[in-house]
This record gives sequence, C-alpha cells and structure tokens, in this order.
Amino acid sequence: MPDRPPLSKELFRDAMARLASAVTIITTDGEEGRCGFTASAVCSVSDDPATLLVCVNRSATTHAHLVRNNLLAINVLAHEQEALSGLFGSSRYSMEQRFASGIWRKGEIGMPVLQGALVTLECRVSLTQEIGTHTVFFVEPLCAEFNRDEANGLVWFDRAYRRA
Amino acid sequence: MPDRPPLSKELFRDAMARLASAVTIITTDGEEGRCGFTASAVCSVSDDPATLLVCVNRSATTHAHLVRNNLLAINVLAHEQEALSGLFGSSRYSMEQRFASGIWRKGEIGMPVLQGALVTLECRVSLTQEIGTHTVFFVEPLCAEFNRDEANGLVWFDRAYRRA
Repeated sequence: MPDRPPLSKELFRDAMARLASAVTIITTDGEEGRCGFTASAVCSVSDDPATLLVCVNRSATTHAHLVRNNLLAINVLAHEQEALSGLFGSSRYSMEQRFASGIWRKGEIGMPVLQGALVTLECRVSLTQEIGTHTVFFVEPLCAEFNRDEANGLVWFDRAYRRA
Repeated sequence: MPDRPPLSKELFRDAMARLASAVTIITTDGEEGRCGFTASAVCSVSDDPATLLVCVNRSATTHAHLVRNNLLAINVLAHEQEALSGLFGSSRYSMEQRFASGIWRKGEIGMPVLQGALVTLECRVSLTQEIGTHTVFFVEPLCAEFNRDEANGLVWFDRAYRRA
C-alpha cells in the first residue's frame, strides 16, 4: 500500500477542482518594491498563536520577495473583486499594471492593503516548509482590517468563480 | 515591528469567518476502528508530487488515530450533506453514531469512503508539522473517487453553510 505512487497531476487537478476555496491576493513590499499575486491555497491553522498558511509556487515572481521581506498581507476578496483576481493571477501583467487597478494603500506594518477586501491580515512569516513545487509559509497575523460587513466572498470552485 | 504580538483569538476568529472554505469529513481506519471528523482546514499544496494538507487540533479524538494509522480519506462534501457535517463536527456524537448516517464503505486502501461526496481522496501521510494547538498533516493522495458530476460544494463562510 505505502508503495503505491501518488495521483497523476491531471487526476489531482480534477480532484482539487471540487475543493472550493476562498480567493485572496497575497501582497508584500520591501526594498525591491511591492508585488502581489492571486492565491487560493490559504488556510487557517491555529488560533493560539493565531496562525495561517499560504502555499506559494517557488517559480512565482513573488516567492523570492516573500522570503526576503518576511512580511505579507492576505487580502480576502469580496465577490465583486473577480476582475482583480484575474489581473493578479496572470503572468501577462506586470506588478505596476496589477496595482494600477483597485485602491491600494500601505497598512499598519507597511504591506499593500486593498480597499474593499472582506478582511486584510498583515502577517509575519513564522516558519516555512518546502513541499514538492511549493513553499508553505506559516504566518502570524499582526493586524486585521475589516472592511466589509455584508459582502459575499469570492470562491473558486469547479474551475469557475462562485459567490459564497 | 517583528515584536508585535499576533492577533487575539477573538479577532483571529472574526477574520477567519470571512475566509470561505470547503467542508470535508476526514476519516481513518485501523486496529482501533474507524473514526472521522468535520474539517474545513484542508488545502491543496502541490501537484508534483500530488500533496494536500489537513490541519487537526491535537485535542481531537481522531488526532491520535491519524498519527497511528498514517492513512486517511478526505471526503469533500456536496451541498446537501450539511447534516453529516454537523454530526461529524460535534463531540456529542460517538463514532458509532456518526457513521450510522450516510452510506460508508471501505475504499481501495481501506479508508471510510462516503457515498455522494463530490470527491474522496484516500491519502498517505507524508509529513507532519506541529503549529500552535494543531498538527498539519501533509498527505499524498493515492486514489480518487469522483462521485458527483453536477453537485454544488458545501462551503463554510461567515459562520454559516453556503452553496458554492
């Protein structure tokens, strides 16, 4: 049993299409400027100490910046922010082009915070773990901004956007 | 900045209420019988090798069984399986009471597989990481059962069930 190989990429992706997830934009800022990308692999871990995790492909532009800055913001998107998700999720757009959409400002600890996100958490990286093609960043949120009380969440399910 | 403490439990929970997540039932089976619990902290990590993670509170009954068996199934719930989520999420119900609802059978590698789940992945634990109150189980799916082609997913958002 334990010698059986894991699922193929294709089958795994088909399975993951059935696991709904929130859509977020992960941002960071440091000496080399701000950058950000769309991420759906974000997960609550523990409330003592408050910890979440974010999985990031090591081939992503932002990966090196996250490692260097050790700080990031998790902007949880509201349903009507779908267009921003597409922009920050495509390698066709430069960081300048991405941040030209939406209203962004520096948060309490200096990370890019998106106006109108359901909540933005500015976090410090507490631990990293490399798994296959990705690094898992365990992060402790240091401050939270609650922007929207009655908005729906943007969800990715069955390879399409949905409203939660 | 790095000396600032992480968010309080209360604020963290309020923030996490805005991060939508899929609802799953994690099951395992071994010498001490089958057990399972509802989990919303499940996340895709890498497709090479295919890997997901599941965060489990170390105080949960099932935690010790997962560590011992080293195998588990992730049953991703469809929208109409909300009642099962409540049953497997409450410590008031024994394992016998939980498995009395729904139609369960042994999967290919012997884990409890729920009929009508969107997809069930039987997995081998490849790595564990303790974070605060929880253990993060990194798991490699060895087989997948796709049960439902047109069902909606069950999502937890804003402390309520939603349809994805």
